[in-house]
Amino acid sequence: MTDTDERVKHFLTTQDWSVDELTGLLELADQLKADPLNDSLRGKSVALLFLNPSMRTRTSFQVGAQQMGAIAVVLAPGQDAWGVEFAPGVVMDGDAEEHIAEVAGVLSRYVDLIGLRAFPKFRDWSHDRTDSVIKALAQHSTVPVINMETIVHPCQELALMQTLRGRFGDIAGRKMVLTWTWHPRPLNTAVANSALLIGTRFGADVTLLCPSEEYLLDPQFMDAAKANAEASGGSLQVSHDIESAYDGAEIVYAKSWGALPYYGHPEEEWRLRQHNKHFIVDEAKMALTNNGVFSHCLPLRRNVKATDGVMDADYCLALDEAENRLHVQKALMMTLAGAK
Amino acid sequence: MTDTDERVKHFLTTQDWSVDELTGLLELADQLKADPLNDSLRGKSVALLFLNPSMRTRTSFQVGAQQMGAIAVVLAPGQDAWGVEFAPGVVMDGDAEEHIAEVAGVLSRYVDLIGLRAFPKFRDWSHDRTDSVIKALAQHSTVPVINMETIVHPCQELALMQTLRGRFGDIAGRKMVLTWTWHPRPLNTAVANSALLIGTRFGADVTLLCPSEEYLLDPQFMDAAKANAEASGGSLQVSHDIESAYDGAEIVYAKSWGALPYYGHPEEEWRLRQHNKHFIVDEAKMALTNNGVFSHCLPLRRNVKATDGVMDADYCLALDEAENRLHVQKALMMTLAGAK
Amino acid sequence: MTDTDERVKHFLTTQDWSVDELTGLLELADQLKADPLNDSLRGKSVALLFLNPSMRTRTSFQVGAQQMGAIAVVLAPGQDAWGVEFAPGVVMDGDAEEHIAEVAGVLSRYVDLIGLRAFPKFRDWSHDRTDSVIKALAQHSTVPVINMETIVHPCQELALMQTLRGRFGDIAGRKMVLTWTWHPRPLNTAVANSALLIGTRFGADVTLLCPSEEYLLDPQFMDAAKANAEASGGSLQVSHDIESAYDGAEIVYAKSWGALPYYGHPEEEWRLRQHNKHFIVDEAKMALTNNGVFSHCLPLRRNVKATDGVMDADYCLALDEAENRLHVQKALMMTLAGAK
Repeated sequence: MTDTDERVKHFLTTQDWSVDELTGLLELADQLKADPLNDSLRGKSVALLFLNPSMRTRTSFQVGAQQMGAIAVVLAPGQDAWGVEFAPGVVMDGDAEEHIAEVAGVLSRYVDLIGLRAFPKFRDWSHDRTDSVIKALAQHSTVPVINMETIVHPCQELALMQTLRGRFGDIAGRKMVLTWTWHPRPLNTAVANSALLIGTRFGADVTLLCPSEEYLLDPQFMDAAKANAEASGGSLQVSHDIESAYDGAEIVYAKSWGALPYYGHPEEEWRLRQHNKHFIVDEAKMALTNNGVFSHCLPLRRNVKATDGVMDADYCLALDEAENRLHVQKALMMTLAGAK
Repeated sequence: MTDTDERVKHFLTTQDWSVDELTGLLELADQLKADPLNDSLRGKSVALLFLNPSMRTRTSFQVGAQQMGAIAVVLAPGQDAWGVEFAPGVVMDGDAEEHIAEVAGVLSRYVDLIGLRAFPKFRDWSHDRTDSVIKALAQHSTVPVINMETIVHPCQELALMQTLRGRFGDIAGRKMVLTWTWHPRPLNTAVANSALLIGTRFGADVTLLCPSEEYLLDPQFMDAAKANAEASGGSLQVSHDIESAYDGAEIVYAKSWGALPYYGHPEEEWRLRQHNKHFIVDEAKMALTNNGVFSHCLPLRRNVKATDGVMDADYCLALDEAENRLHVQKALMMTLAGAK
Repeated sequence: MTDTDERVKHFLTTQDWSVDELTGLLELADQLKADPLNDSLRGKSVALLFLNPSMRTRTSFQVGAQQMGAIAVVLAPGQDAWGVEFAPGVVMDGDAEEHIAEVAGVLSRYVDLIGLRAFPKFRDWSHDRTDSVIKALAQHSTVPVINMETIVHPCQELALMQTLRGRFGDIAGRKMVLTWTWHPRPLNTAVANSALLIGTRFGADVTLLCPSEEYLLDPQFMDAAKANAEASGGSLQVSHDIESAYDGAEIVYAKSWGALPYYGHPEEEWRLRQHNKHFIVDEAKMALTNNGVFSHCLPLRRNVKATDGVMDADYCLALDEAENRLHVQKALMMTLAGAK
């Protein structure tokens, strides 16, 4: 096995991109929001591999590609395409009919970009935390790979940042609370990891609010966020106290996720989880903020993660953030497809 | 919750559109049939939400959008996208990950039109008859919504009318029989409701032929059809006698549907249903008509709803009607997408 | 029932096309490989009916159509579209909601080309060997039908030939080994049948290498290949000896397939199958060849059908062959869509 071809620029995590590069993407996204149609990708194409469901991502990529003269082809391996093996050197006598080496190799011949959504498997975090599936794709692909959510969700980070820049201009020095919320099942930590990374990257004073130590995010992301904050002049704090966390916040970002010590054991995690429904984002909590805005990546269970009152309030930016997925992904496609 | 934004023109039922407006759509459809390619929707898009299977609808929308420079994005919530909650105010701790408020809100940011297919659930007609799913979508959408079949099928109505106008010029005063046919299962009444509505709207003398009183359609559609007939100079009659119903008919339209008093109880309905296989449209019955034409919305089970002889006859317009789905939907997209 | 309309040119098997016609397609494919974008199919469309999974086929058709201004609409009957009945004269009171007569008829009104993938059912070879499903589609379609794999895979044949012509110029007189390989399940013989047909058609000296007589292909393909060889000056031999078969070969093509005498009885076939894992294509076997190239249609199970060493070698042309699917199918679409 060889390493990823260094001449190919992928978008696997925002941490691989400089703040200047990310800012360039966001500025291009603003231009595309103002002027959506162009022919810059005429005759080009992007393959979207979905190992998990999607509504916003597939729609925004398909529409965005079309607005620039390109096509997005949606593939769901294991459902309407062949099952895929991602590990190297395997004797493939199990379920998978095809290896990522060939999937990546073939798609690289057909298309100019490949997007992948591959949620973790929720069995073994020590494995899932390595993000090996998208890394295997990037290794074998000779065209740029875009992360459409694995254990991070960098497209969502860009959409969040375009939204916050639109509201605040700059988030440096502003208090941003990333709050855990209840959900009937332990979910992927990807968007939480991503919010932590991008908030600290752009200099916010980030507070991670969660019920207990068990809900801290993986050290690789906690450490990266600390390093980001040091570089950007921002900060990172952890809190388990709802009132003081919301106090004075200008940005409230919510997400539910599973406690990593119980990863793969949802019944055990439930004993912890069941007592924390009060983390729901409601109007009383929002009243504690400094005229704070609220956002969420969607999908969102109403009256579970946030109340109808919060979702329907003027300070709720969730639809703006969802819309901006379209613009940032178009900026990404334009930027990356020039590389072929 | 607020009512549907009155500045947005939806296509939920033909009853919301005037005869002049419907005629305008049909004339535009005729133009598009003669001259299929244009750039009127360049860079625009339509999202097609399918909660049920489709062949004609998805193909005709995808091809039609492309022929005008647009793209149709197909989404199957609960299968390849997130499950959706349609009721207001719910604590969403069940299966659905997302509320129609956000689905409609997000799609309104991405696309210019939203189509929805949402068959009734076949559990409780008193609920299903309110057509609450598409109404919830229309309420939350800021772009026009197109009904791709719920408890009515207005796109099919337009296709039927384009077909009949092509054959007869005008259907006013012509005898049109809407005949129930057998099918192994009790089906949706949507196309039957729709045939009743559009036939009476354009002045036909409509006879609803069905095995017994139990197969009458919902009073809201029977009443609307009577009112339509009064306004148009047509008429509406009910018959359970096959011979007199076919006698002198110029148009025979067939559909199978379930008896509403047994809605949600298919085993009980079977006791009624099993004795009515003879309602099949065959050449002997067609011979009773006044050189009548036959049509059906498709899909059709051959030799169950209609014989091979009828389906393969020159007087069978089912393929023409199916083709016209393409043209009328293009006319609809052109007309509605100008509203954004 | 009437026969297929002879004015419509289909692509069901390469045997229906002359060597000159096939060569014309390959030359056009070479041009399209060098110059991929054109507007020759502006506003045209192709429907792709998949009764089985696909990755290469759907991506290459969708991307290829787009590169020529057309659209490919993907349909999966029985999954996201209605189930289809293919037999004539049936009383359709089973699972299928729609007959191929209407599916073909309607699609012929919407699109300019129809592709179909319909693998055999693995129950009764005496029925499956007639290829009745795609023949029923072609019979009822008024637009050209493209075989996307049934009991032959003619698009793959063209891709293989474009690849071999790119390497050798001409394959006449070159030794080509079609080797059976092990796989955990008995697979479709389609690509094996196709390799036999196209190799002999273009004059290669073809050796069919398989474990025993039970793995011979259907007589209709063995006989057609012999006739092809006689016409082209090539030859066809059968071998069960690995060493002598590989000896001096310039082309090694691999495929796994089920033994026809045990068709529909995978457990019985397993008793034969289990002892033949050593048919895997490995570097030792390739060393016996005359600097031979290796290829496979993909998907391929690594270290089951061929080793990592073979797949990653310079002589492996599998990715080139997969890429050429795009070019030959574009040539096919251009050639056939002119017929409407």
